[in-house]
Amino acid sequence: MGEFELIERYFAAVGATRSDVVLGVGDDAAVLSVPAGEELVACTDTLVAGRHFPDGFEAADIGWRSLAVNLSDLAAMGAAPAWALLALTLPALDEDWLEGFVTGFAALANAHGVALVGGDTTRGPLCMTVQALGTVPRGTALRRRGARAGDLVYVTGWPGDAAAGLALLTGRLSGSGANRGALEAKFRRPEPRVAFGIRLRGIASACIDVSDGLAADLGHLAAASGVGAVVRAEELPLSRALYTLAGEARARDFALGGGDDYELVFTVPPAARPTLARLTAGAGAPACHCIGEIVAGRGVRVVGERGELPVPRGWDHFRA
Amino acid sequence: MGEFELIERYFAAVGATRSDVVLGVGDDAAVLSVPAGEELVACTDTLVAGRHFPDGFEAADIGWRSLAVNLSDLAAMGAAPAWALLALTLPALDEDWLEGFVTGFAALANAHGVALVGGDTTRGPLCMTVQALGTVPRGTALRRRGARAGDLVYVTGWPGDAAAGLALLTGRLSGSGANRGALEAKFRRPEPRVAFGIRLRGIASACIDVSDGLAADLGHLAAASGVGAVVRAEELPLSRALYTLAGEARARDFALGGGDDYELVFTVPPAARPTLARLTAGAGAPACHCIGEIVAGRGVRVVGERGELPVPRGWDHFRA
Repeated sequence: MGEFELIERYFAAVGATRSDVVLGVGDDAAVLSVPAGEELVACTDTLVAGRHFPDGFEAADIGWRSLAVNLSDLAAMGAAPAWALLALTLPALDEDWLEGFVTGFAALANAHGVALVGGDTTRGPLCMTVQALGTVPRGTALRRRGARAGDLVYVTGWPGDAAAGLALLTGRLSGSGANRGALEAKFRRPEPRVAFGIRLRGIASACIDVSDGLAADLGHLAAASGVGAVVRAEELPLSRALYTLAGEARARDFALGGGDDYELVFTVPPAARPTLARLTAGAGAPACHCIGEIVAGRGVRVVGERGELPVPRGWDHFRA
Repeated sequence: MGEFELIERYFAAVGATRSDVVLGVGDDAAVLSVPAGEELVACTDTLVAGRHFPDGFEAADIGWRSLAVNLSDLAAMGAAPAWALLALTLPALDEDWLEGFVTGFAALANAHGVALVGGDTTRGPLCMTVQALGTVPRGTALRRRGARAGDLVYVTGWPGDAAAGLALLTGRLSGSGANRGALEAKFRRPEPRVAFGIRLRGIASACIDVSDGLAADLGHLAAASGVGAVVRAEELPLSRALYTLAGEARARDFALGGGDDYELVFTVPPAARPTLARLTAGAGAPACHCIGEIVAGRGVRVVGERGELPVPRGWDHFRA
């Protein structure tokens, strides 16, 4: 099977069918119809084998993750995902692997109504770059910039679970049973907060997704907004599984410093707190916790019951 | 210097400034404004070191090529390029290399009014994936499908030059002086036929760019259109440089089988020939030659003065 048969067989009908795809996989480029009154939102993220996922990681989970990390960026903008392109570099043509990869990719794409509309396959060291495209009503995209002193800082879900899951997969944390399974699943198949991001339009003053680590990403948000942030350590939501396997201190380290959660960190003015409470009370809304507040100044501080705690650095590919 | 300083320093202001960029580099995603009445055209292509360019290839040329191969896909659709995203995977942070890469990328981006609006930097084996986004007036995109028996087949420029340039760079062809320089330049810095692609709207019945090889890409166009094609070998345009260094037979092999030209192959109904002639007479229009015609049936045949010639296979990453 050659490259073109490969594309035809595996990628021609992945993900949702959408009437706004004028021309999909199989030409030099895709032709897409952006609704009137909507702005286009575009992002791209690469996964490199051995760096973003451990060797031996299941192909279906890689496929899921490669799209999830991109949908999470759209979620952080409050965008509705629509289309994706996939550039896949493979060391060799392994049909079992490909079928697994496509299965995982398609599962998440279908869940969010995303159509795969184009891409590229090349031979080389295993890595993949997905580009996700979505839309927002004009002027409603959430940004990193916009937080003000006095705003409250929230995080969705249970930060640290995914990093602990990776630590379990790579032997840096031990554990077994349901707790282990729950944490590993959070790393294997992160659920981008797409629906919740859309609901935050007009409510959040700033938003970012947690890919490098909660403290680091909150730091990016604060820096873009020209403000500082204080996190109250005792307010950090820790899942029962994480607390049980890692213990409180290490669980907190995972929550503050671990990447890969793909939860949303966002800020809201105090007056919007009741609106937010109604949102998070809705069926299907993720858990959402207030973990601190925005202050004048710069940088992120973490305050515990006995004073300030060290703030972990986030993930940085090129820092020694 | 870390990943974030890197992004800030090198990528925050690459390429053109455009008023339709609502939000560019530095947030979770870019926000872009697609003009009313226009459709979005999206493509992506990856370059892998040692596969798409030889080891030691200059960083500035890699930067240029990484965007050029994508703009060529937009050209083949008749789209006007607008924005690009860049996912760059580097083995280490080499500032000289990065500066060179960005210089080459920006030179082509500026020439076509393309703004770099987002991306990702990761550590790993050297490769890069660019996504190019452009627009066409609704319903005017050129496609591979649409050629009919009797249509004439054209190619822009001087196919084979880039493949010969690569052969010179890698020692598979020898030569020196101006001819060598001219051919190498065609591989180093291909000029995507953006302006000409736009002019072909409403004229070409089908279009594709030459990345895998003239015969192979014409084969893709024919297959998509459900027709066959005949190329007349003696009509193949051969540049003086290519003819001089490679000799006629080998020059023809480069022209038919060599990839990397990023010229356009397109078809026009015979009635549109005068319109096309006016287009190519214009200042700045590329050379454009009729090399054959579309026929009923399937596949590409190459006919010389003494009968049929073998048809070279195109580039296929996964065929042994």
